[in-house]
Amino acid sequence: MALVADYNRENAAPPENGLQRLTALVQQDLQRVNALILDHMQSEVVLIPQLAGHIIAAGGKRLRPLLTLASAQLCGYEGRRHLALSACVEFIHTATLLHDDVIDESDLRRGLATANAVWGNKSSVLVGDFLFSRAFQLMVADGSLKVLRILSDASAVIAEGEVMQLTTSNDTATTEDSYMKVISAKTAALFAAACEIGAVVADRPEAEERALEVFGHSFGVAFQLVDDVLDYSARQALLGKSIGDDFREGKITLPVILAYQRGTEREKHFWRRCMEDLQQDEADLEQAIDIMTRHGCLEECIGRARSFGAAAHKALEIFPDSTPRQALADVVDFGLSRVY
Amino acid sequence: MALVADYNRENAAPPENGLQRLTALVQQDLQRVNALILDHMQSEVVLIPQLAGHIIAAGGKRLRPLLTLASAQLCGYEGRRHLALSACVEFIHTATLLHDDVIDESDLRRGLATANAVWGNKSSVLVGDFLFSRAFQLMVADGSLKVLRILSDASAVIAEGEVMQLTTSNDTATTEDSYMKVISAKTAALFAAACEIGAVVADRPEAEERALEVFGHSFGVAFQLVDDVLDYSARQALLGKSIGDDFREGKITLPVILAYQRGTEREKHFWRRCMEDLQQDEADLEQAIDIMTRHGCLEECIGRARSFGAAAHKALEIFPDSTPRQALADVVDFGLSRVY
Repeated sequence: MALVADYNRENAAPPENGLQRLTALVQQDLQRVNALILDHMQSEVVLIPQLAGHIIAAGGKRLRPLLTLASAQLCGYEGRRHLALSACVEFIHTATLLHDDVIDESDLRRGLATANAVWGNKSSVLVGDFLFSRAFQLMVADGSLKVLRILSDASAVIAEGEVMQLTTSNDTATTEDSYMKVISAKTAALFAAACEIGAVVADRPEAEERALEVFGHSFGVAFQLVDDVLDYSARQALLGKSIGDDFREGKITLPVILAYQRGTEREKHFWRRCMEDLQQDEADLEQAIDIMTRHGCLEECIGRARSFGAAAHKALEIFPDSTPRQALADVVDFGLSRVY
Repeated sequence: MALVADYNRENAAPPENGLQRLTALVQQDLQRVNALILDHMQSEVVLIPQLAGHIIAAGGKRLRPLLTLASAQLCGYEGRRHLALSACVEFIHTATLLHDDVIDESDLRRGLATANAVWGNKSSVLVGDFLFSRAFQLMVADGSLKVLRILSDASAVIAEGEVMQLTTSNDTATTEDSYMKVISAKTAALFAAACEIGAVVADRPEAEERALEVFGHSFGVAFQLVDDVLDYSARQALLGKSIGDDFREGKITLPVILAYQRGTEREKHFWRRCMEDLQQDEADLEQAIDIMTRHGCLEECIGRARSFGAAAHKALEIFPDSTPRQALADVVDFGLSRVY
């Protein structure tokens, strides 16, 4: 079985360093955001903080709120509005995760039992709805219609992307174009909104707002491409991480689309059996990784992720060099470095 | 088996007349709202209008948007903002129904296959999310932070109420107080918001806004009380309507709470077996209705619904007599008359 580590040909930042630097840069703000998150997920209905706490505590990185905090800092913002809006972004993300748990009937997320597995579908849907509503209450309290527009647009696009993903599920005829639309919507839209808000609270010119939107969008696409590669990463498996979730669900990601396009008739039959009929046995995941590797599919996906990473870097050029600019660039490299 | 029709001792409006009069009053506006609903549920992801259209077309009454339209008319509003906001209210309601379908695993709603049964849980959750986001996009386009506050508050309260209902499910120890909190949140909050918005767009004094909020809240509680009685209505069964859904799910509604409180030890055992253990056989629903009737539980619920109906009427007294005031009063009577 080929290792995705084989692709490690260039100088990449040491794993996680970019994320750690970004986290360090906004450490104080992040603590305030965590306090706000804890505060606003309270309810006299005790199941709500229990379940929300489970998934939010499991959440680890806080990547999206970090993007809002760093973008605001990049724009020289000195107020406090970015704190509650970062919490909004995390609430919307968490609601999506909770609804995604229902959807994918996945058993594990980030190595913990999903809220869904512990509390059942019903609770996950409804607590997700609560957090989503809370996000809008926080935005209303902030009082900016522009922010409300950005995040309600992003939410609608995310839901559209998730539905579109559903309709491409188990369909090997899914095009690259459909796949790109899905990941732009379900992942990149919230990254873009999270970054754009940083410029909005700082009341920066339209050009900077657009630059941060493009930065977030490009980073989001790169991040999802890498995620979709990682699900077929033998190295992840060696590190003890769970792989093959997408494969077992028959989720049609770019590695599969490319492998199907480039495959022999015999391989196409293999993909249809595994992804459409979900007829899989134990050796099939390894077989899938072998086929992908043989056709250079994972390498190709990483190449595309790098292109989007480069676009993200380029979007930052409008801003003068600064510590937050460097930290945002570094977190993109962190996102890409996860495949090494 | 006693008929709920037995309770028809007073002069009630002929069934549905109140609703028909309200509908007739705002007929033109309602057509515009229906066009807006159709327009704004569109998406290039075709499953979205398909699924949303299924549930929205099934929806029939449009009771909540009717309340917004009539409240605006009562307040002398002559603009067009109430049209899009009525559509928002219906979108939020529809999203709740879609998520409720997932939740209750109910097979039938309003005599049609649920969206859930036809398209699956995943789609129902995600299309609900889409409609919910669309509602917020429409509110942002309207541009009133006050309306956004009212409807985001209502949404959070609804989600809390739904989670609370979940935690009381199958628990015969549920108190009347808990039940009242649940129905105030899951049903009355949106009725209240729908009515309040009518005063907000018309820019009426605070007292009128509060009066319409109280009207909507009281009507919503009465409406839900009647709904919960109808699920045990032998007359509904004779009319060919489905009854016993709540019973089969072990949902703890007021008729059950009262029957349990007033029951003998033998009856308490019956309720625990049916509602907590969900050990039911064919004759149990009839048995449940017999017990409820013997203890006057359904009559008691209807009495309480009437009290809330009276409170709704009273709330309207702040307004001078007018056709819309009469129509709003009549629709409350329609809500109550459903049990006859």
